Formats: sequence, C-alpha cells, structure tokens
Amino acid sequence: MISIFDEIKWNEAGLVPAIAQQHDTGKVLMVAWMNQEALRVTIEEGRAVYYSRSRGKLWRKGEESGHVQLLKELRIDCDSDVVLMQVEQIGGIACHTGRHACFYKRYENNQWVDVEPVIKSQAEIYSNHKGKIGK
Amino acid sequence: MISIFDEIKWNEAGLVPAIAQQHDTGKVLMVAWMNQEALRVTIEEGRAVYYSRSRGKLWRKGEESGHVQLLKELRIDCDSDVVLMQVEQIGGIACHTGRHACFYKRYENNQWVDVEPVIKSQAEIYSNHKGKIGK
Repeated sequence: MISIFDEIKWNEAGLVPAIAQQHDTGKVLMVAWMNQEALRVTIEEGRAVYYSRSRGKLWRKGEESGHVQLLKELRIDCDSDVVLMQVEQIGGIACHTGRHACFYKRYENNQWVDVEPVIKSQAEIYSNHKGKIGK
Repeated sequence: MISIFDEIKWNEAGLVPAIAQQHDTGKVLMVAWMNQEALRVTIEEGRAVYYSRSRGKLWRKGEESGHVQLLKELRIDCDSDVVLMQVEQIGGIACHTGRHACFYKRYENNQWVDVEPVIKSQAEIYSNHKGKIGK
C-alpha cells in the first residue's frame, strides 16, 4: 500500500516547501520546509511542524514563541512537491520579526519596502514564553 | 548601489520559490521557481515569468496556454528567500491540469483526494493556442 508520503516528491535533501495560509483571511503567513517526519507529525498533532535546515531538526512552530499554527486543512499541488496548509495562527503573529506574516517587504520603485507593522517586539515574543507552549 | 536582486537569497542553484496568489480571492494558485532573470522579466513585463528547471529556461506563464498571470503586487519574505506575487489569473486556470489552482489534492483519511474540478481539458488548453499569447 502506497503511503501519503510516498506520493510526495521530496527534493534531493528529502524536503518540500510548505506554505502556511491563514484559513479565514487567505493571508500567506510564511513558507518553510518539511521532511517526511515533519509532515507526519503535522498531521498527527494537528499543528504545523517544519524541518529547520539550520538546526537540522524538527521545528514545532510556536515552540518558543507560543505562536502555534493549528492545522485546518492540508493540500499538495499537482506535482506533489509543495504543501499548502490552512492554519489558525495563534497570537496573530507568524513571523519571527513580530509581524503578522513574513511577506512584509513589497516591491516599490526598485526597492523592497517594509509595509507591515511589528505587532510585538522580538524581545517580548521570545522572553517568558514558558507556559505558552506544550498545551 | 545594492540591487533588489542582491538582497534576495538565491539557493545553491540560483533559484527561489515563487508563489502566485489570486489577488482578489487569496487563492494560492501555484508555486514555481524563479532565477534572477525570471524575476527581472516578471517586473519588467508585469506578468509572472518563472524558470523551468526541467527545460532549463525562462517560462513565461501562459505562453502556450494563454493563462497569463498579470502581476498586481510583488513581495519577499523576512528571509528574502521566497517570492509572493498577487496576480490576476487570466482564464481562471493556473494549473496545467485545467484546474483553477494547482493545490487540488486534499488530505482526507490518510489519502490525497482530488477536490477541485477540471475547468478545461488539457487537450483544449494546449491546442489552438496561437493568438492567445504575445498580445
């Protein structure tokens, strides 16, 4: 029996890009990477779990910040090499910079311009986070 | 002077993933890849131009199908390694399978299930396309 993981075309590093989209507004929150284990755990736990290429291990989104992404729906594309998640972004902040979404730099007149406000400072997000995670 | 291209973190192959999102509905239409030239031409021509890894050359989306994506807005993310475009999808079909969007396979009960209708057959899309492109 073919598993849902076998149908996915993992890249040479065993990864696929995964998009998190806020389910009710359609806002594209962020893109990160998943390996097979990350996708499996995402499904099992009902929350976005990525693979951190820099740290070389699973990254349970929100594990430090509390900004967990609850999984509402999971799709793959026609080529089976990109994942799209509908999520509920806890805290309304997906970006490590404290913005709602990571796509805050807009092209304007040959420049990238920051066009989204910082909702909460990084210092505030990453301090005193105990108790916010693992619920 | 730093160009807008210098700020982008191209991967080891000189590419970044680019998401096309329908500007008025928020629907994520597709994800493909861009190299520096593809991004430059996207901006210059005001339409999504990708880099086809399989063909090793620029891919002006819609060049065969007529399903051009007109560029409404262009953003990059916090890490400057993913592009997000708001587009107007001409013909309402982004996917080569004839569906509105490429993300038509939804996870349900340990399976990927096709949940979006084919609007136009591939035979119909890719025949008689002359005159639809290059306008």
